[in-house]
Amino acid sequence: MTVGELDEFGLIDHINGLVSAAGPSEGVVLGIGDDTACWRPHPGLEVATTDSLVEGVHFLVDLATPEELGWKALAVNLSDVAAMGGVPGYALISLALPPQTPVDWVTGLYRGLLDIARTFRVGVVGGDVHSASQIVVTVALWGTVNAPGPLARSAARIGDRIGITGTMGASAGGLRLLKEGRPVPGPLRQAHLHPRPQIEAGQGLLHCGVKAAIDISDGLLADLGHLCRASGVGASVAAERVPVDPHLREVFGDDALALALSGGEDYQLLFTAPGEVIEKVQVEVPFTDIGEITQRRKGVEVMDAAGRSVALPQKGWQHFDPR
Amino acid sequence: MTVGELDEFGLIDHINGLVSAAGPSEGVVLGIGDDTACWRPHPGLEVATTDSLVEGVHFLVDLATPEELGWKALAVNLSDVAAMGGVPGYALISLALPPQTPVDWVTGLYRGLLDIARTFRVGVVGGDVHSASQIVVTVALWGTVNAPGPLARSAARIGDRIGITGTMGASAGGLRLLKEGRPVPGPLRQAHLHPRPQIEAGQGLLHCGVKAAIDISDGLLADLGHLCRASGVGASVAAERVPVDPHLREVFGDDALALALSGGEDYQLLFTAPGEVIEKVQVEVPFTDIGEITQRRKGVEVMDAAGRSVALPQKGWQHFDPR
Repeated sequence: MTVGELDEFGLIDHINGLVSAAGPSEGVVLGIGDDTACWRPHPGLEVATTDSLVEGVHFLVDLATPEELGWKALAVNLSDVAAMGGVPGYALISLALPPQTPVDWVTGLYRGLLDIARTFRVGVVGGDVHSASQIVVTVALWGTVNAPGPLARSAARIGDRIGITGTMGASAGGLRLLKEGRPVPGPLRQAHLHPRPQIEAGQGLLHCGVKAAIDISDGLLADLGHLCRASGVGASVAAERVPVDPHLREVFGDDALALALSGGEDYQLLFTAPGEVIEKVQVEVPFTDIGEITQRRKGVEVMDAAGRSVALPQKGWQHFDPR
Repeated sequence: MTVGELDEFGLIDHINGLVSAAGPSEGVVLGIGDDTACWRPHPGLEVATTDSLVEGVHFLVDLATPEELGWKALAVNLSDVAAMGGVPGYALISLALPPQTPVDWVTGLYRGLLDIARTFRVGVVGGDVHSASQIVVTVALWGTVNAPGPLARSAARIGDRIGITGTMGASAGGLRLLKEGRPVPGPLRQAHLHPRPQIEAGQGLLHCGVKAAIDISDGLLADLGHLCRASGVGASVAAERVPVDPHLREVFGDDALALALSGGEDYQLLFTAPGEVIEKVQVEVPFTDIGEITQRRKGVEVMDAAGRSVALPQKGWQHFDPR
């Protein structure tokens, strides 16, 4: 059966059933089914973000399961909350769907969404559905951040060390293999379609006294550039310190570093902090030190082992690019 | 210049400039430009809703100005908050745009968005932009609701009177004339493309002790049906009491009642309350009494002046209908 055959209210009832079966969420006063969701406030400052997955731009229905897309749609928003040191709370899901979309596809999408929601204790409390010519999954995510938060892009200072969680490039490597129709090793597919947002790491960084962070979605160098621009500083990255994903290196060899620097969609955290804070972070959050914050006029530089500036590859994902 | 020529980060900077020029919003800790927005919490329970306008489904770019669409995109969400008796707070805007969209169109859209945001004291604090094959404007709106809120769809009781704010059908009449390429009287265009959400009325209803409300977006009878279903009751509406918009009647004559009952997108509030509460509402909120809540088995009936049941027209807007 398709979404068009089920009609709008039938589809809403179906989604309502899937969400209800997942059990009640703490603090919810009214969930799906009224004009708005309603919940009891949590302590702390409030944070909110929205991000979309667009068919043909961010994904192809032939290359990803609906469960993977549901997981990823919420994961990319959770990654933004992680970058603030936040605690995720409640999500609204907005679906634009072609009428010929199978209802089973929507069921799978919600299965993935509810799976990651349960993992990170997020209440899926509402949303809407609309007819459209291509699938667009938009998530709006609300959360809180405790004192002395939030982590901010604008708080990097000259002399700070630059740290990143996890490894780089696996997601971009997975995407390239998927697009080329080549076999995709499990860890690369997982990195691209089932990323694990760094919620705990973000809270750990905040707890250790880190002030500046960003999540890596556009690519390591692009997002480091965003952070530097917001902070009015430059950055020097040691190429040989960048934690290139080992599975990526196995498949891509010498191309792996470029994917690690510019591939994007890693959904790891990049942060900066002075030495004494870095020492505390070393005890609490696994990360790799990749370089140092410098003066603004230096821009973002990548240095080789001999201390020479490396020519940079293109700087990450551009949504309106024709590629 | 088009959105594709400006590229993603240029477009974000442009939007950022428009929002910054509108001035700071109360309580905002971080607005556009970081991984999430951040604000200081307001007292009360929290409410949140999301709704989209999809090109070709909800609007045609040739028939509405971008300013009107910007206004309407936030208005439809504000109407949901009004139906809870809520106080709107902060909005995130998610834009899916074809690369050939003129940047001026986006500027106009934001002009309309910021106009209604200022009118209802909403902070536009973030969002995202994506490439897509058709325009989709998705708004996520957060707010609060004071005790003893929120108004709920499920709180109608047998014997309650049924009240509605404003007049009915003007929006649907305006849409029909626009689609047919006929001249559209100002009040009908205004009702369709520049609706005024009933935020003050919603808060007034809550203050008077009303418990049950819904906003009229799918159509008077369809939304009354949603409320009855959620409350497990029926409803009897007196056809001659329905406040058919006078401008609508002028253009559509005898067809006006059907548009008033089923046209949709009125963005007025429908509420129910027992007699003693209705008396208080009469002092505080302008409305029309159109009937009574009845037993569930009676369903939603429309009665003529002689007390006979009237055959009902189709029950409002269905998003996946081919029409």
